[in-house]
Amino acid sequence: MRDTFHAELANVSLADAMHGLSDPLRLRIVELLANQGETECSDIYNTLDISKSNASHHFRVLRECGILLRLHRGQKQSARLRADEFEERFPGLLRAVLDNINSA
Amino acid sequence: MRDTFHAELANVSLADAMHGLSDPLRLRIVELLANQGETECSDIYNTLDISKSNASHHFRVLRECGILLRLHRGQKQSARLRADEFEERFPGLLRAVLDNINSA
Repeated sequence: MRDTFHAELANVSLADAMHGLSDPLRLRIVELLANQGETECSDIYNTLDISKSNASHHFRVLRECGILLRLHRGQKQSARLRADEFEERFPGLLRAVLDNINSA
Repeated sequence: MRDTFHAELANVSLADAMHGLSDPLRLRIVELLANQGETECSDIYNTLDISKSNASHHFRVLRECGILLRLHRGQKQSARLRADEFEERFPGLLRAVLDNINSA
């Protein structure tokens, strides 16, 4: 069920994608999801020690650039990367970013 | 001769680098320089049909994120990518971006 806005990746430009990945906190969210797979949103903002509202802002930006999917699981919400779709739209980009997060 | 500000790449974060590459016009400048090598600044803004002041702003952002070097050649100024240094700092990132510029 997708009742929140998710981008059509075909409509996401490279500049949009780069913008989505241009914030230190968003990079930490992406790293966490790349490592853990689907994760409850509350776990994400607790793990990163950020407020729910701050996290929500960044989740939205990541959804709008097509990299994050928000999912409703009963009373809870979770998020996961759209890694395969993103790879199809921007080959090699997410891998290069993740490699540089890990080594930075 | 480097009398304009150029970033120490060791001090450029991944988020900074991503920000530098998150604008459509900056991506076009990077693409042009990747294809042509060192290019007179006036040629760049004429080729891209943008104002000198607009180009100067984007040149500055690209210098600050460590990807562009501005060079004084007599009365003229030129620019080139710091491709090797950027590759050393962020392995694979510029290549992934350029591949996606070309195919986008």
